[in-house]
Amino acid sequence: MHLLDQIHSPEDVRALPADQLPQLCEEIRAFLVENVSRTGGHLASNLGAVELTVAIHRVYDTKRDRLLFDVGHQSYVHKLLTGRKEDFPSLRQYGGMAGFPKPAESVHDAFVAGHASTSISAALGMARARTISKEDYDVVALIGDGALTGGLAYEGLSDAGQSKEPLVIILNDNGMSIHKNVGGIATLLSKQRVKPSYLHFKQTYRNTVGRIKPLYNALHLFKENIKDTVLPDNIFDDMGFYYIGPVNGHDEQEVERVLRWARDLRQPVLLHVITKKGKGISYTEAHPERYHGVGKFNAETGELPAPKPCFSDAFGSAMLEHAQSDPKLVAVTAAMASGTGLEAFSERFPDRFFDVGIAEGHAVTMASAMAKQGLLPVFAVYSSFLQRGYDMLIHDAALQSLHIVLGIDRGGIVGNDGDTHNGCFDLSYLSSVPGMTLYCPSSFAELQAMLNTALYHTSGPVALRYPRGGEGAYKDIHNEPVTVLRSGTDLTIVTYGILVNEALQAADELADKGVSCEVLKLGRVLPAPIESVLHSLSKTRYLIAVEDVCSDDCVGMKLLAACEQEGILLKGSVLLNLKSGIVPHGAVDKLMREYHLDAAGIAESALALCGGKGGAE
Amino acid sequence: MHLLDQIHSPEDVRALPADQLPQLCEEIRAFLVENVSRTGGHLASNLGAVELTVAIHRVYDTKRDRLLFDVGHQSYVHKLLTGRKEDFPSLRQYGGMAGFPKPAESVHDAFVAGHASTSISAALGMARARTISKEDYDVVALIGDGALTGGLAYEGLSDAGQSKEPLVIILNDNGMSIHKNVGGIATLLSKQRVKPSYLHFKQTYRNTVGRIKPLYNALHLFKENIKDTVLPDNIFDDMGFYYIGPVNGHDEQEVERVLRWARDLRQPVLLHVITKKGKGISYTEAHPERYHGVGKFNAETGELPAPKPCFSDAFGSAMLEHAQSDPKLVAVTAAMASGTGLEAFSERFPDRFFDVGIAEGHAVTMASAMAKQGLLPVFAVYSSFLQRGYDMLIHDAALQSLHIVLGIDRGGIVGNDGDTHNGCFDLSYLSSVPGMTLYCPSSFAELQAMLNTALYHTSGPVALRYPRGGEGAYKDIHNEPVTVLRSGTDLTIVTYGILVNEALQAADELADKGVSCEVLKLGRVLPAPIESVLHSLSKTRYLIAVEDVCSDDCVGMKLLAACEQEGILLKGSVLLNLKSGIVPHGAVDKLMREYHLDAAGIAESALALCGGKGGAE
Repeated sequence: MHLLDQIHSPEDVRALPADQLPQLCEEIRAFLVENVSRTGGHLASNLGAVELTVAIHRVYDTKRDRLLFDVGHQSYVHKLLTGRKEDFPSLRQYGGMAGFPKPAESVHDAFVAGHASTSISAALGMARARTISKEDYDVVALIGDGALTGGLAYEGLSDAGQSKEPLVIILNDNGMSIHKNVGGIATLLSKQRVKPSYLHFKQTYRNTVGRIKPLYNALHLFKENIKDTVLPDNIFDDMGFYYIGPVNGHDEQEVERVLRWARDLRQPVLLHVITKKGKGISYTEAHPERYHGVGKFNAETGELPAPKPCFSDAFGSAMLEHAQSDPKLVAVTAAMASGTGLEAFSERFPDRFFDVGIAEGHAVTMASAMAKQGLLPVFAVYSSFLQRGYDMLIHDAALQSLHIVLGIDRGGIVGNDGDTHNGCFDLSYLSSVPGMTLYCPSSFAELQAMLNTALYHTSGPVALRYPRGGEGAYKDIHNEPVTVLRSGTDLTIVTYGILVNEALQAADELADKGVSCEVLKLGRVLPAPIESVLHSLSKTRYLIAVEDVCSDDCVGMKLLAACEQEGILLKGSVLLNLKSGIVPHGAVDKLMREYHLDAAGIAESALALCGGKGGAE
Repeated sequence: MHLLDQIHSPEDVRALPADQLPQLCEEIRAFLVENVSRTGGHLASNLGAVELTVAIHRVYDTKRDRLLFDVGHQSYVHKLLTGRKEDFPSLRQYGGMAGFPKPAESVHDAFVAGHASTSISAALGMARARTISKEDYDVVALIGDGALTGGLAYEGLSDAGQSKEPLVIILNDNGMSIHKNVGGIATLLSKQRVKPSYLHFKQTYRNTVGRIKPLYNALHLFKENIKDTVLPDNIFDDMGFYYIGPVNGHDEQEVERVLRWARDLRQPVLLHVITKKGKGISYTEAHPERYHGVGKFNAETGELPAPKPCFSDAFGSAMLEHAQSDPKLVAVTAAMASGTGLEAFSERFPDRFFDVGIAEGHAVTMASAMAKQGLLPVFAVYSSFLQRGYDMLIHDAALQSLHIVLGIDRGGIVGNDGDTHNGCFDLSYLSSVPGMTLYCPSSFAELQAMLNTALYHTSGPVALRYPRGGEGAYKDIHNEPVTVLRSGTDLTIVTYGILVNEALQAADELADKGVSCEVLKLGRVLPAPIESVLHSLSKTRYLIAVEDVCSDDCVGMKLLAACEQEGILLKGSVLLNLKSGIVPHGAVDKLMREYHLDAAGIAESALALCGGKGGAE
């Protein structure tokens, strides 16, 4: 890896002679595979963006020019080339380098990215700021074809195309986002991919007429007419962009060349680049979707460790079972069929499975309309992404009390993906949705029982919330609004979801120290079964609420308010939760420790609370 | 009006001979003007949709077929023709007929509408439900060109175009939504409007080749190729729709004809209809934007009452002033320049004014990027519509602590528009946005002072929240987190915004009855200045919290929780607020009464609370 050893900054990339770039790209790929195989992370998308990222750094100076990523998991090559090579061993680990762009990490990271479809809007905001502030940096945004299915991308395109702002949107089109693309925009792009004549016409035109300014200007209007009649329009032209493409995204020199052209046009440009996800490594090219996000794996063979059973699987198999007996049941996903455990469902019941693209808002509204017409729609979605559907939950589902079922995956701490992906806000925003019911299963079996309750014994909008990963020692099914898992006299611990494991373990530890804990498990968190908890609290007079949500609107706060209204004056209380909801990346157990949500943290809090105040007398 | 007198249901419309329809349309327009001039309501958009709505009812049976409105304020003609003529005198009044489609009101109203861009998603959900349930009704959706700027519409189009579902999307294109259209989609539509050749080609093709089935099938593939080379593509074709248009939307017979064609194609069809907003009445045709939403007016002359000063105006003039001295200040709106008081700003500072279309998510992300690059962006938006930007507030603004300023108009009860438009959820969803500050001005002058504080003395994301309409007797400026407006010993009333007027009046009334109220006005609601309020509560031990937000996450609940944590046991408390947040349409004062948020309601609650419990001893 002698070239990569010389690269300490983008200046070094720009200084390389062009004939060394293929070697550099090869070294980058080897570096990525070697490192990600040790730490885990996003692999295939980064392998596909190697030449593209190198070209960007040879054309732009990302210290002052602003490079916007979309989703952002394809930023590893960028990180590698901007002085963060030494940080790769700590990738996505607590205190280490993030797996997504973070302005706090480097001046080369222009903006936070994690959710999809934001880069065009962000680029436009920066371009406008540049113009208004009379500065002269360039703005360039990357967006994948998957992210282009999101409505936000379209809102950004619509505004940017008419903005007259010099800015370049690079559409990194690999014909498949996380898995495969869906919807009209995918069709549109696939048509565009086979129309290279357009690019050739533009290039010829530029190299002939374009070189003679007066002629160019005179012919400009005529050219627009020619284009309208002779050349196929596309959505990007129509929206006001100068469209360039399609370009082979693995030909670094070609990408560099068109990128300079795009940059120098001084207007909104859409540069359409075709790449191959997983490019350059045999096993990732063969199965790019398997290497989208991975844990540690065998770098030589590509062998991945066997997946562990997780809540998503439990959800998926329960869905499959219900679908067999209930022809009204349908499943909806926003480009997360695999992540939410619905792959088997999609194969078995393709007519009742709807992948709508990265379009959570549409998913909620469409599912609500399905419910209005008598279907039983289940929308499986990651907690953090459902934030995009907040308005639709209120406006389209709740105002009509429609019975849509949400399978909210990745509730709580997700771990290595970090702050953009944690599911901390769900309880808070769902609390305000009128008539919403929220169940929190603590085990796989309970998830399945609760899905049944949500489908057939609950009215109005209803959600199940479960975490990324697997269950703990607790494998029971209670499926009750509240269950006393353990009786006690000194202190009430209230919790839900997989945190019951920590609470029970803490109660064991505390018992050894003479503190008798009552452990209450909430199966239903909205509406919270306040009454039943108050019964316990009026006995113990000490509360510890243990929750993997942000502090706003947590059950603990609702319990305190209820105690006050019912005239129960507690001797002490501690609300353990994820505070503001901005939880950094890192291993889940490290973060649980950090927020005192693990057994040790709960036990410590309990001792500080009632040990000190004499609650265990 | 002898024709309209015979119309009691859509069957009657269908029974009319075609030559009587122009008269029917004329009578409908006269009816609308006469009625809306007395009740207020949405006028111009309904006048533009008369022939279109009549045609829909002659082609579809909305009792079983499903007709989806978008935004929904153009549903008056539909309501008139579906047996609700007698309800027009009660339009938008408490207990009367809603100004938007409501399934609870009529079987002819298929789905709730109020927010923009939902109809395509809803139509697709219903079409899919129809197919899965093996039923055979038709689904038809209306969407305006304005609503087509929203990302949700694009998500719906993208999915619907590829769905193969028989459904018809009618694009009601009046070239201006509430005011005028912006962005790429508007350009695209304006191009399409001057390309009637496409429609003629399709019609000729259908009338010749289309009549001979085997020939049609044989040529189908060839036709697609012809289309690709000879005819201009448009976004709708590209996304998988069969595009028909443009069609003159005021030629009822022509619309009927193409609508039958569209319906019988049994595939996703986009029917592009051109209408004129305000059609048929001289003054509304001349100034359709003035007659979008109106109060009572002179039906003869169109004379509108002089507008009363409102919070939006106060906001707009303060913005204008700041912009003069601060070149970094920019204003962003999502198609609500006039409604949010930014018209003067847009004329005076066009280079620093950005109307992004109905795209609240994009507005938040773009403004966040502007802030990242050193501008001072202010996004003026209605409370209820900002729900669409919830995810972006967290992901793009809050995670980076960016200083974007939100001017949240229409906070609290909006009155006649009803449940889809009330600003009840803002405090709740903003509470969970990390680092969010929220100020609630109680007077015009205070709004202006608080805007200054938000712009120059607050960091991170910050919002001002103010109601629709004008200020009350309270005209002071305190601009403090908390102000004791009135000292007292028996009871603490905590409130904010214009509700201070009611609280002060209630305190007066209560004083006459021997109850001494302490009235606390919160100028800052997030983070709530809990400490200062507790000081008063520990003295009076009675709390009444008066808030025009939903009960979830209201300040009152936070106060109760804080009392509990601080060991202050209140003798009694009442939280007056908008409960679930589903507040029906009606006059604001009627609704204030209903929710006990007016002076009388507060006083009653106070007497019941501490009168009964001896708090005023």
